[in-house]
Amino acid sequence: MTFDRTLHHFPLDPASRQVRLVLGEKRLPFREMPERYWERRPELTALNPSGLTPVLVESEAGRNLVICESRAILEHLEETAPEPGLLGRDPAERAETRRLLQWFDRKFDYEVNALLLHEKMEKRLLGLGAPDLANLRAGREALRSHMAYIDKLLQERDWLGGRRLSLADFAAAANLSVIDYFGDVPWNDFTGVKTWYMRIKSRPCFRPLLTDRWPGLAPAAHYDDLDF
Amino acid sequence: MTFDRTLHHFPLDPASRQVRLVLGEKRLPFREMPERYWERRPELTALNPSGLTPVLVESEAGRNLVICESRAILEHLEETAPEPGLLGRDPAERAETRRLLQWFDRKFDYEVNALLLHEKMEKRLLGLGAPDLANLRAGREALRSHMAYIDKLLQERDWLGGRRLSLADFAAAANLSVIDYFGDVPWNDFTGVKTWYMRIKSRPCFRPLLTDRWPGLAPAAHYDDLDF
Repeated sequence: MTFDRTLHHFPLDPASRQVRLVLGEKRLPFREMPERYWERRPELTALNPSGLTPVLVESEAGRNLVICESRAILEHLEETAPEPGLLGRDPAERAETRRLLQWFDRKFDYEVNALLLHEKMEKRLLGLGAPDLANLRAGREALRSHMAYIDKLLQERDWLGGRRLSLADFAAAANLSVIDYFGDVPWNDFTGVKTWYMRIKSRPCFRPLLTDRWPGLAPAAHYDDLDF
Repeated sequence: MTFDRTLHHFPLDPASRQVRLVLGEKRLPFREMPERYWERRPELTALNPSGLTPVLVESEAGRNLVICESRAILEHLEETAPEPGLLGRDPAERAETRRLLQWFDRKFDYEVNALLLHEKMEKRLLGLGAPDLANLRAGREALRSHMAYIDKLLQERDWLGGRRLSLADFAAAANLSVIDYFGDVPWNDFTGVKTWYMRIKSRPCFRPLLTDRWPGLAPAAHYDDLDF
């Protein structure tokens, strides 16, 4: 009986990166199918009606299980491949991990990605012209307040969600890593966050992300440097 | 040993309504603490740094467990109060339920609520002036395409997520119910959706939502009518 996984993802999509990191951390092998989500490939829309990445397809004996959207995939992996556990051991840890997943998927995405990544990445991918400088500025300012919040959490905790590495760390790192590709993370003003990020960045699960390159979008010089 | 639950919520917040419906469906009693989230009450921000509703506080023997954000609360309730199960029995059902949770929390929220509810509700609550008619029109148009999608799902299934009532139904109903408060759901153009909504609306868990009223915001005449 053969079993395999295929992940439909866009390499610079923070939600896709969360899933790649977690698959790596759990040592679950998978095939990659990079998607240019903005082209709305019919085969992708057939898998996920929202047309968005990530989509994980698990195949066993000719039957496909299709799991769409990052939260659904992360919860599925916790349920079906529980080692190492990344959600938390008790209700309080799990609540905190999930609170932070929501924080990055929604608040960070609205306040930072929708400005900074839209202007620096999406506009280039979709051919929408030059970045709007006011939006870039607002996105960078919002990023600083999120960095301050992460820094505050890390002053009280070993990892973002508490005493143990969790999905919250991978959600935060996935989001920051895309912004870091474009060189926009003010690491030196937030050394606590930088130290935490270096710990995540040096994990084996992170390596594939460091080799991501997208035509026409060059990464910042330090992007794949583990000692940046 | 006393155990009690308090839900901090805003009565017309779709995310809060998801949780109220599920607490009701699972017959879990709770105290209500209505929040005017836009005032950013310090006690609420102390519980949830995002300042958003819903927040569920479970107290036992003087110890509080604070669970923030709707997805975290719904997953917590499935884990700690599993009857009746609303997530699905196997990985495929659970993946489909969670895909649809994401659909309503993100796609519906971006495309419909951010326009329609923002113009009709938030602007009044926050004193931001008259609704923008172009935004209202765009929100109503997006709502029609979501209604068409729900209709399509219901042509193939008994409930939104599949053969069983699930969190997906409560997510959809919670969102539509707030828009219905303002009289903006085109029920008569989507009779399959209307029939499904009547089934949900007549459940005991729905009753508290039908008595919600907010000062200065009158509901549509049919809002609390079970046979609308």
